[in-house]
Amino acid sequence: MKTPQKKRYEMRLSGSGGQGLITAAVIFAEAVGVYDGKYVCQTQSYGPEARGGKSKAEVVISDHPIDYPKARRLDLLLAMNQAACDAYYRDLNPDGLLVVDSSLVEQYPTNRVIAIPFTRIAREQLGKEMVANMVALGAVGLLSGQVISNSLEKALLARVPPGTEELNKAALHLGMDEAAKINLDALPRTILHDEEV
Amino acid sequence: MKTPQKKRYEMRLSGSGGQGLITAAVIFAEAVGVYDGKYVCQTQSYGPEARGGKSKAEVVISDHPIDYPKARRLDLLLAMNQAACDAYYRDLNPDGLLVVDSSLVEQYPTNRVIAIPFTRIAREQLGKEMVANMVALGAVGLLSGQVISNSLEKALLARVPPGTEELNKAALHLGMDEAAKINLDALPRTILHDEEV
Repeated sequence: MKTPQKKRYEMRLSGSGGQGLITAAVIFAEAVGVYDGKYVCQTQSYGPEARGGKSKAEVVISDHPIDYPKARRLDLLLAMNQAACDAYYRDLNPDGLLVVDSSLVEQYPTNRVIAIPFTRIAREQLGKEMVANMVALGAVGLLSGQVISNSLEKALLARVPPGTEELNKAALHLGMDEAAKINLDALPRTILHDEEV
Repeated sequence: MKTPQKKRYEMRLSGSGGQGLITAAVIFAEAVGVYDGKYVCQTQSYGPEARGGKSKAEVVISDHPIDYPKARRLDLLLAMNQAACDAYYRDLNPDGLLVVDSSLVEQYPTNRVIAIPFTRIAREQLGKEMVANMVALGAVGLLSGQVISNSLEKALLARVPPGTEELNKAALHLGMDEAAKINLDALPRTILHDEEV
Protein backbone atom coordinates (compact mmCIF):
# COMPACT_ATOMS: atom_id res chain seq x y z
CA MET A 1 0.00 0.00 0.00
CA LYS A 2 1.21 3.50 -0.80
CA THR A 3 2.30 5.76 2.02
CA PRO A 4 1.71 9.41 1.15
CA GLN A 5 4.73 11.63 1.91
CA LYS A 6 3.56 15.21 2.25
CA LYS A 7 4.57 18.17 4.35
CA ARG A 8 1.05 18.61 5.72
CA TYR A 9 -1.71 16.01 5.95
CA GLU A 10 -5.29 16.99 6.73
CA MET A 11 -8.00 14.64 7.88
CA ARG A 12 -11.60 15.04 9.04
CA LEU A 13 -13.67 12.42 10.87
CA SER A 14 -17.37 13.20 10.56
CA GLY A 15 -20.73 11.75 11.40
CA SER A 16 -23.26 12.16 14.17
CA GLY A 17 -22.82 13.13 17.79
CA GLY A 18 -22.96 9.70 19.38
CA GLN A 19 -20.49 7.96 17.08
CA GLY A 20 -17.35 8.70 19.07
CA LEU A 21 -15.49 10.58 16.35
CA ILE A 22 -13.81 13.03 18.71
CA THR A 23 -12.45 10.13 20.74
CA ALA A 24 -11.13 8.53 17.56
CA ALA A 25 -9.47 11.79 16.51
CA VAL A 26 -7.90 12.32 19.94
CA ILE A 27 -6.45 8.79 19.83
CA PHE A 28 -5.14 9.31 16.29
CA ALA A 29 -3.49 12.59 17.29
CA GLU A 30 -1.94 11.10 20.42
CA ALA A 31 -0.56 8.20 18.41
CA VAL A 32 1.04 10.55 15.90
CA GLY A 33 2.13 13.22 18.39
CA VAL A 34 3.11 11.32 21.52
CA TYR A 35 4.28 7.98 20.11
CA ASP A 36 5.46 8.87 16.59
CA GLY A 37 6.83 12.27 17.59
CA LYS A 38 5.42 14.30 14.69
CA TYR A 39 3.73 17.68 14.89
CA VAL A 40 -0.02 17.28 15.05
CA CYS A 41 -3.03 19.45 15.90
CA GLN A 42 -6.41 18.00 16.70
CA THR A 43 -9.42 20.31 16.62
CA GLN A 44 -13.16 20.32 17.06
CA SER A 45 -15.06 23.41 15.99
CA TYR A 46 -18.64 24.13 16.92
CA GLY A 47 -20.98 26.77 15.61
CA PRO A 48 -24.72 27.30 15.67
CA GLU A 49 -25.12 24.17 13.52
CA ALA A 50 -23.73 22.02 16.35
CA ARG A 51 -27.20 21.52 17.79
CA GLY A 52 -28.18 19.52 14.72
CA GLY A 53 -26.34 16.50 16.06
CA LYS A 54 -23.56 16.58 13.47
CA SER A 55 -20.06 15.92 14.70
CA LYS A 56 -16.65 16.49 13.18
CA ALA A 57 -13.13 16.30 14.41
CA GLU A 58 -9.99 17.23 12.51
CA VAL A 59 -6.38 16.09 12.61
CA VAL A 60 -3.59 18.01 10.89
CA ILE A 61 -0.17 16.35 10.75
CA SER A 62 3.10 17.90 9.69
CA ASP A 63 6.84 17.41 9.79
CA HIS A 64 7.06 21.03 10.89
CA PRO A 65 5.36 23.14 13.57
CA ILE A 66 1.75 23.79 12.60
CA ASP A 67 0.68 27.39 12.60
CA TYR A 68 -2.83 26.97 11.25
CA PRO A 69 -4.49 23.92 12.80
CA LYS A 70 -7.76 23.82 10.88
CA ALA A 71 -8.13 21.60 7.84
CA ARG A 72 -8.64 23.45 4.55
CA ARG A 73 -8.22 20.82 1.80
CA LEU A 74 -8.74 17.34 3.11
CA ASP A 75 -6.41 14.49 2.27
CA LEU A 76 -8.84 12.11 3.94
CA LEU A 77 -12.49 12.42 4.88
CA LEU A 78 -14.20 9.78 6.98
CA ALA A 79 -17.98 10.07 6.67
CA MET A 80 -19.92 7.92 9.11
CA ASN A 81 -23.33 9.02 7.83
CA GLN A 82 -24.95 10.44 4.72
CA ALA A 83 -25.31 13.99 6.03
CA ALA A 84 -21.60 14.23 6.79
CA CYS A 85 -20.69 12.74 3.41
CA ASP A 86 -22.89 15.27 1.62
CA ALA A 87 -21.74 18.24 3.73
CA TYR A 88 -17.99 17.69 3.63
CA TYR A 89 -17.23 15.84 0.42
CA ARG A 90 -16.50 19.13 -1.36
CA ASP A 91 -13.64 19.87 1.08
CA LEU A 92 -11.59 16.95 -0.25
CA ASN A 93 -8.51 17.34 -2.37
CA PRO A 94 -9.12 15.93 -5.86
CA ASP A 95 -6.78 13.07 -5.00
CA GLY A 96 -7.99 12.82 -1.42
CA LEU A 97 -9.51 9.69 0.05
CA LEU A 98 -13.21 9.48 0.83
CA VAL A 99 -13.84 6.71 3.36
CA VAL A 100 -17.47 5.97 4.15
CA ASP A 101 -19.33 3.70 6.52
CA SER A 102 -21.26 1.73 3.91
CA SER A 103 -23.67 0.52 6.61
CA LEU A 104 -24.99 4.09 6.86
CA VAL A 105 -24.00 5.96 3.70
CA GLU A 106 -26.04 4.89 0.69
CA GLN A 107 -25.26 7.44 -1.96
CA TYR A 108 -21.65 8.10 -2.87
CA PRO A 109 -20.82 11.39 -4.58
CA THR A 110 -17.96 9.80 -6.56
CA ASN A 111 -16.69 6.36 -7.45
CA ARG A 112 -13.36 7.30 -5.87
CA VAL A 113 -14.60 5.98 -2.56
CA ILE A 114 -13.52 3.43 -0.01
CA ALA A 115 -16.66 1.87 1.39
CA ILE A 116 -16.37 -0.30 4.49
CA PRO A 117 -19.34 -1.27 6.70
CA PHE A 118 -17.79 -0.15 9.99
CA THR A 119 -21.00 -0.23 11.98
CA ARG A 120 -22.04 -3.62 10.64
CA ILE A 121 -18.59 -5.08 11.37
CA ALA A 122 -18.75 -3.75 14.94
CA ARG A 123 -22.23 -5.14 15.46
CA GLU A 124 -21.81 -8.53 13.79
CA GLN A 125 -18.24 -9.41 14.67
CA LEU A 126 -17.99 -7.81 18.13
CA GLY A 127 -21.61 -7.50 19.21
CA LYS A 128 -21.05 -3.83 20.05
CA GLU A 129 -22.11 -1.23 17.52
CA MET A 130 -20.58 1.49 19.69
CA VAL A 131 -17.03 0.48 18.72
CA ALA A 132 -17.67 1.24 15.05
CA ASN A 133 -15.54 4.34 15.66
CA MET A 134 -12.56 2.15 16.55
CA VAL A 135 -13.07 -0.06 13.49
CA ALA A 136 -13.04 3.14 11.44
CA LEU A 137 -9.99 4.43 13.29
CA GLY A 138 -8.05 1.29 12.43
CA ALA A 139 -9.00 1.55 8.77
CA VAL A 140 -8.31 5.27 8.53
CA GLY A 141 -5.00 4.88 10.34
CA LEU A 142 -3.80 2.35 7.80
CA LEU A 143 -5.25 4.11 4.75
CA SER A 144 -3.74 7.47 5.71
CA GLY A 145 -0.22 6.08 5.92
CA GLN A 146 0.40 8.71 8.61
CA VAL A 147 0.70 6.63 11.75
CA ILE A 148 2.45 3.49 12.91
CA SER A 149 -0.14 0.81 13.70
CA ASN A 150 1.52 -0.04 16.96
CA SER A 151 1.35 3.61 18.05
CA LEU A 152 -2.34 3.69 17.30
CA GLU A 153 -2.86 0.64 19.49
CA LYS A 154 -0.82 2.13 22.34
CA ALA A 155 -2.70 5.42 22.19
CA LEU A 156 -6.03 3.57 22.12
CA LEU A 157 -5.17 1.42 25.13
CA ALA A 158 -4.15 4.52 27.10
CA ARG A 159 -7.44 6.31 26.46
CA VAL A 160 -10.39 3.90 26.39
CA PRO A 161 -12.33 3.23 29.61
CA PRO A 162 -10.80 0.55 31.87
CA GLY A 163 -12.27 -2.85 31.11
CA THR A 164 -12.93 -2.09 27.45
CA GLU A 165 -9.34 -2.39 26.25
CA GLU A 166 -9.67 -5.78 24.56
CA LEU A 167 -12.93 -4.91 22.84
CA ASN A 168 -11.56 -1.65 21.47
CA LYS A 169 -8.30 -3.26 20.42
CA ALA A 170 -10.18 -5.98 18.55
CA ALA A 171 -12.24 -3.30 16.82
CA LEU A 172 -9.10 -1.40 15.81
CA HIS A 173 -7.56 -4.52 14.31
CA LEU A 174 -10.72 -5.44 12.40
CA GLY A 175 -10.57 -2.03 10.82
CA MET A 176 -6.92 -2.41 9.93
CA ASP A 177 -7.66 -5.81 8.39
CA GLU A 178 -10.43 -4.37 6.23
CA ALA A 179 -8.22 -1.51 5.07
CA ALA A 180 -5.40 -3.89 4.23
CA LYS A 181 -7.67 -5.51 1.64
CA ILE A 182 -8.06 -2.21 -0.23
CA ASN A 183 -5.90 -1.59 -3.27
CA LEU A 184 -5.54 2.18 -3.42
CA ASP A 185 -4.01 1.94 -6.90
CA ALA A 186 -7.27 0.50 -8.20
CA LEU A 187 -9.22 3.62 -7.18
CA PRO A 188 -10.04 6.26 -9.79
CA ARG A 189 -7.20 8.74 -9.59
CA THR A 190 -9.28 11.81 -8.84
CA ILE A 191 -12.72 12.73 -7.61
CA LEU A 192 -12.99 15.37 -10.33
CA HIS A 193 -13.05 13.35 -13.55
CA ASP A 194 -14.49 9.99 -12.74
CA GLU A 195 -15.52 9.42 -16.33
CA GLU A 196 -11.97 9.72 -17.65
CA VAL A 197 -10.52 7.03 -15.47
CA MET B 1 -19.12 36.91 40.57
CA LYS B 2 -18.10 38.84 37.48
CA THR B 3 -18.91 37.43 34.10
CA PRO B 4 -16.35 38.56 31.53
CA GLN B 5 -17.94 39.84 28.32
CA LYS B 6 -15.37 39.66 25.56
CA LYS B 7 -15.46 38.94 21.87
CA ARG B 8 -12.93 36.14 22.20
CA TYR B 9 -12.08 34.11 25.28
CA GLU B 10 -9.02 31.86 25.39
CA MET B 11 -8.40 29.11 27.89
CA ARG B 12 -5.74 26.44 28.34
CA LEU B 13 -6.00 23.37 30.57
CA SER B 14 -2.55 21.98 31.32
CA GLY B 15 -0.87 19.32 33.42
CA SER B 16 0.40 15.82 32.86
CA GLY B 17 -0.75 13.13 30.47
CA GLY B 18 -2.88 11.06 32.81
CA GLN B 19 -4.90 13.90 34.32
CA GLY B 20 -7.75 13.88 31.82
CA LEU B 21 -7.38 17.46 30.64
CA ILE B 22 -8.34 16.74 27.04
CA THR B 23 -11.55 15.12 28.24
CA ALA B 24 -12.27 18.17 30.39
CA ALA B 25 -11.64 20.50 27.45
CA VAL B 26 -13.83 18.45 25.11
CA ILE B 27 -16.68 18.58 27.63
CA PHE B 28 -16.23 22.33 28.13
CA ALA B 29 -16.31 22.91 24.38
CA GLU B 30 -19.37 20.73 23.87
CA ALA B 31 -21.19 22.56 26.64
CA VAL B 32 -20.44 25.92 25.06
CA GLY B 33 -20.88 24.85 21.44
CA VAL B 34 -23.67 22.30 21.49
CA TYR B 35 -25.75 23.43 24.46
CA ASP B 36 -25.04 27.19 24.69
CA GLY B 37 -24.81 27.65 20.92
CA LYS B 38 -21.67 29.82 20.82
CA TYR B 39 -18.74 29.46 18.46
CA VAL B 40 -16.00 27.42 20.03
CA CYS B 41 -12.84 25.63 18.91
CA GLN B 42 -11.13 23.02 21.01
CA THR B 43 -7.57 22.05 20.13
CA GLN B 44 -4.73 19.85 21.24
CA SER B 45 -1.32 20.43 19.71
CA TYR B 46 1.57 18.03 19.98
CA GLY B 47 5.20 18.51 19.09
CA PRO B 48 8.42 16.71 19.90
CA GLU B 49 7.97 17.74 23.55
CA ALA B 50 4.82 15.61 23.80
CA ARG B 51 6.85 12.59 24.87
CA GLY B 52 7.72 14.35 28.13
CA GLY B 53 4.29 13.53 29.51
CA LYS B 54 3.02 17.10 29.48
CA SER B 55 -0.54 17.64 28.33
CA LYS B 56 -2.43 20.72 27.27
CA ALA B 57 -5.78 21.37 25.70
CA GLU B 58 -7.18 24.68 24.57
CA VAL B 59 -10.64 26.15 24.23
CA VAL B 60 -11.33 29.35 22.30
CA ILE B 61 -14.82 30.83 22.56
CA SER B 62 -16.31 33.64 20.54
CA ASP B 63 -19.58 35.29 19.60
CA HIS B 64 -18.36 35.15 16.01
CA PRO B 65 -16.91 32.45 13.75
CA ILE B 66 -13.38 31.61 14.86
CA ASP B 67 -10.76 31.77 12.16
CA TYR B 68 -7.69 31.13 14.28
CA PRO B 69 -8.40 28.41 16.84
CA LYS B 70 -5.17 28.44 18.82
CA ALA B 71 -4.87 30.42 22.03
CA ARG B 72 -2.41 33.32 21.94
CA ARG B 73 -3.06 35.38 25.10
CA LEU B 74 -4.81 33.32 27.72
CA ASP B 75 -7.77 34.63 29.67
CA LEU B 76 -7.60 31.57 31.88
CA LEU B 77 -4.84 29.04 32.52
CA LEU B 78 -5.50 25.91 34.53
CA ALA B 79 -2.23 24.38 35.73
CA MET B 80 -2.60 20.95 37.27
CA ASN B 81 1.12 20.57 38.03
CA GLN B 82 4.20 22.71 38.61
CA ALA B 83 5.78 22.09 35.20
CA ALA B 84 2.64 23.30 33.40
CA CYS B 85 2.38 26.35 35.67
CA ASP B 86 6.00 27.29 34.98
CA ALA B 87 5.79 26.63 31.25
CA TYR B 88 2.56 28.42 30.44
CA TYR B 89 2.18 31.20 33.01
CA ARG B 90 3.83 33.68 30.65
CA ASP B 91 1.04 33.15 28.07
CA LEU B 92 -1.57 34.72 30.37
CA ASN B 93 -3.09 38.12 29.80
CA PRO B 94 -2.07 40.52 32.59
CA ASP B 95 -5.64 40.39 33.86
CA GLY B 96 -6.06 36.69 33.09
CA LEU B 97 -6.88 34.08 35.70
CA LEU B 98 -4.29 31.56 36.87
CA VAL B 99 -6.04 28.57 38.44
CA VAL B 100 -3.76 25.98 40.03
CA ASP B 101 -4.21 22.63 41.69
CA SER B 102 -2.73 23.52 45.07
CA SER B 103 -2.33 19.81 45.86
CA LEU B 104 0.38 19.64 43.19
CA VAL B 105 1.61 23.18 42.48
CA GLU B 106 3.76 24.52 45.31
CA GLN B 107 5.33 27.67 43.89
CA TYR B 108 3.06 30.33 42.43
CA PRO B 109 4.60 32.83 40.01
CA THR B 110 2.23 35.59 41.15
CA ASN B 111 -0.16 36.33 43.99
CA ARG B 112 -2.91 36.78 41.40
CA VAL B 113 -3.71 33.11 41.65
CA ILE B 114 -6.71 30.97 42.44
CA ALA B 115 -5.45 27.94 44.32
CA ILE B 116 -7.82 25.02 44.84
CA PRO B 117 -6.70 21.51 45.85
CA PHE B 118 -8.54 19.68 43.07
CA THR B 119 -6.71 16.39 43.47
CA ARG B 120 -7.07 16.37 47.25
CA ILE B 121 -10.79 17.15 47.00
CA ALA B 122 -11.27 14.30 44.53
CA ARG B 123 -9.33 11.89 46.72
CA GLU B 124 -10.75 12.86 50.11
CA GLN B 125 -14.34 13.69 49.24
CA LEU B 126 -14.96 11.20 46.46
CA GLY B 127 -12.30 8.56 47.02
CA LYS B 128 -11.23 8.81 43.37
CA GLU B 129 -8.24 10.93 42.52
CA MET B 130 -8.91 10.36 38.83
CA VAL B 131 -11.89 12.74 38.83
CA ALA B 132 -9.73 15.70 39.85
CA ASN B 133 -10.12 16.82 36.23
CA MET B 134 -13.89 17.09 36.70
CA VAL B 135 -13.50 19.02 39.96
CA ALA B 136 -11.25 21.41 38.05
CA LEU B 137 -13.69 21.57 35.15
CA GLY B 138 -16.48 22.64 37.49
CA ALA B 139 -14.32 25.36 39.02
CA VAL B 140 -12.97 26.61 35.71
CA GLY B 141 -16.44 26.60 34.19
CA LEU B 142 -17.75 28.88 36.91
CA LEU B 143 -14.65 31.11 37.11
CA SER B 144 -14.57 31.66 33.36
CA GLY B 145 -18.12 32.95 33.23
CA GLN B 146 -18.26 31.46 29.74
CA VAL B 147 -20.63 28.53 30.16
CA ILE B 148 -23.97 27.79 31.76
CA SER B 149 -23.47 25.34 34.63
CA ASN B 150 -26.37 23.21 33.50
CA SER B 151 -24.84 22.91 30.02
CA LEU B 152 -21.58 21.75 31.53
CA GLU B 153 -23.41 19.05 33.44
CA LYS B 154 -25.32 17.91 30.36
CA ALA B 155 -22.14 17.75 28.27
CA LEU B 156 -20.37 15.83 31.03
CA LEU B 157 -23.16 13.27 31.37
CA ALA B 158 -23.13 12.69 27.61
CA ARG B 159 -19.41 11.98 27.48
CA VAL B 160 -18.21 10.12 30.60
CA PRO B 161 -18.11 6.29 30.57
CA PRO B 162 -21.42 4.61 31.43
CA GLY B 163 -21.66 3.87 35.13
CA THR B 164 -19.47 6.82 36.15
CA GLU B 165 -22.07 9.54 35.63
CA GLU B 166 -22.88 10.15 39.31
CA LEU B 167 -19.24 10.20 40.38
CA ASN B 168 -18.28 12.66 37.68
CA LYS B 169 -21.30 14.84 38.31
CA ALA B 170 -20.48 15.00 42.00
CA ALA B 171 -16.91 15.99 41.13
CA LEU B 172 -18.14 18.73 38.81
CA HIS B 173 -20.36 20.17 41.52
CA LEU B 174 -17.63 20.07 44.16
CA GLY B 175 -15.51 22.15 41.81
CA MET B 176 -18.32 24.62 41.21
CA ASP B 177 -18.86 24.92 44.96
CA GLU B 178 -15.18 25.68 45.56
CA ALA B 179 -15.13 28.30 42.81
CA ALA B 180 -18.27 29.93 44.17
CA LYS B 181 -16.34 30.74 47.36
CA ILE B 182 -13.76 32.76 45.41
CA ASN B 183 -14.12 36.53 45.34
CA LEU B 184 -12.52 37.55 42.06
CA ASP B 185 -12.63 41.23 43.08
CA ALA B 186 -10.28 40.46 45.96
CA LEU B 187 -7.57 39.23 43.60
CA PRO B 188 -4.68 41.54 42.67
CA ARG B 189 -5.78 43.26 39.49
CA THR B 190 -2.89 42.19 37.32
CA ILE B 191 -0.14 39.63 37.23
CA LEU B 192 2.34 42.30 36.14
CA HIS B 193 2.62 44.58 39.16
CA ASP B 194 1.84 42.54 42.19
CA GLU B 195 3.70 44.95 44.47
CA GLU B 196 1.48 47.89 43.55
CA VAL B 197 -1.76 46.25 44.47
